Amino acid sequence: MANVKIALIQLKVGIDKEANIRRAKELLEEAAKKGADIAALPEMFNCPYSNEFFRSYGESYPEGVTTKMLSEEAKRNNMYVIGGSLPELEEDKVYNTSYSFDRKGTLVGKHRKVHLFDIDIKGRITFRESDVLTPGSEMTVFDTEWGKIGVMICYDIRFPEFTRKMALAGVKAVFVPAAFNMTTGPAHWELTFRARALDNQIYMFGISPARNETGYIAYGNSIAVNSWGKVIGRLEEKEGILMLDVDIDDINEVRESLPLLKHRRPDLY
Amino acid sequence: MANVKIALIQLKVGIDKEANIRRAKELLEEAAKKGADIAALPEMFNCPYSNEFFRSYGESYPEGVTTKMLSEEAKRNNMYVIGGSLPELEEDKVYNTSYSFDRKGTLVGKHRKVHLFDIDIKGRITFRESDVLTPGSEMTVFDTEWGKIGVMICYDIRFPEFTRKMALAGVKAVFVPAAFNMTTGPAHWELTFRARALDNQIYMFGISPARNETGYIAYGNSIAVNSWGKVIGRLEEKEGILMLDVDIDDINEVRESLPLLKHRRPDLY
Repeated sequence: MANVKIALIQLKVGIDKEANIRRAKELLEEAAKKGADIAALPEMFNCPYSNEFFRSYGESYPEGVTTKMLSEEAKRNNMYVIGGSLPELEEDKVYNTSYSFDRKGTLVGKHRKVHLFDIDIKGRITFRESDVLTPGSEMTVFDTEWGKIGVMICYDIRFPEFTRKMALAGVKAVFVPAAFNMTTGPAHWELTFRARALDNQIYMFGISPARNETGYIAYGNSIAVNSWGKVIGRLEEKEGILMLDVDIDDINEVRESLPLLKHRRPDLY
Repeated sequence: MANVKIALIQLKVGIDKEANIRRAKELLEEAAKKGADIAALPEMFNCPYSNEFFRSYGESYPEGVTTKMLSEEAKRNNMYVIGGSLPELEEDKVYNTSYSFDRKGTLVGKHRKVHLFDIDIKGRITFRESDVLTPGSEMTVFDTEWGKIGVMICYDIRFPEFTRKMALAGVKAVFVPAAFNMTTGPAHWELTFRARALDNQIYMFGISPARNETGYIAYGNSIAVNSWGKVIGRLEEKEGILMLDVDIDDINEVRESLPLLKHRRPDLY
């Protein structure tokens, strides 16, 4: 038994950076009041999801006001904070980066989105992150008091090899700040989270911004899936917090009854 | 445009081997009358799915009566036959093997199930194929007039690396003779077929035996999923044929709009 209280914060992100940070802070404190051990924010939570804003909303670490707030909230509330993502500036480059802090406010994980979102679905949705962003080149896994946890960002989840690599590194759960849209969301959001959870026999948590009205419209539907591939919690489109109380070690029972990781054939692939 | 008429034959398998072969033959001819270019049978279609029967129902190739029937039906009806699977005897070993024949009745693919099904879900379902069966050690991909096709058997689909390997080898579709049960079927059947199709942007076809009443109870629900992860056809639990007319090259449009295979990061995994 290793119970963890997890808060998925489906923040509504707007055009005003300061207001986004203020609201994220309020909701982190609300999550703490509800007893969260881990609170997670969505992708690009301080910035509208659009290439035109990434550079001007970006910050360097550790000077940036957004990461300062995340670290302070983690420490003040004695909880882990998985800080969604925000635009990171380093030299002349911009990354889509997630910062995670432990209960003392210490940085324990920093993930730069590895797979950039360049899609062109005719008449539905076109986006080219690579016009502005630089991809990361590392997997992000860190230790917590409950065991290893992984963090990836949105489009990273599309590639089964990446979650598998985390599972083989021993993660019990993966947090995915993500902003699917109104085309890929209804078609693929739940399916992909369930598949990664089932195939790897881990918990998967997806944290989306609340649905906005203009620009790139986020699907919402922040989601939690257990290691049997079952949805154990889900929001709708509005802003809110999904609170979960999970026994993170129950993945072991699933792995004992259906030993998928043991039955792999690494001689073949 | 490359239209293919595909028949998924959800055969009801019983205890009488000769009757199973006779019925499979009838349904293959029915599929041919409906215009099938490719007809596919379920896992262990000549034998009840139970360790106690595999050896005694088994056959060697090419002497066996079951594979003779498959080859003859392919030739007589001028269609591809993906012969589900049957117990194969070679020396003192038993394999769970799928034989595929082209329009001339020539063997074009032979797949020995690579991942053996050893599970123990307390109070629900226990099965240990490895008590009797020997695993194969190869991926099975062959050329057809429409391009490359892959064949795997049941539990093989649980391992995302294996379908991915086929996709990277250029398959447009994978056929999976399979017998999920009444625990894993409702929980994981559709999810897994949809995930493999979506992640690899290929067609996935699952062919189950019809639901039987005693012993290992097959889930049925033979299924077809397109490369967007959408279910395009599905049977219920009864015996029957699912006929599909698919443009197998429409996977290219999906791959163009959402270039998942191009966006992989093989430097990382």
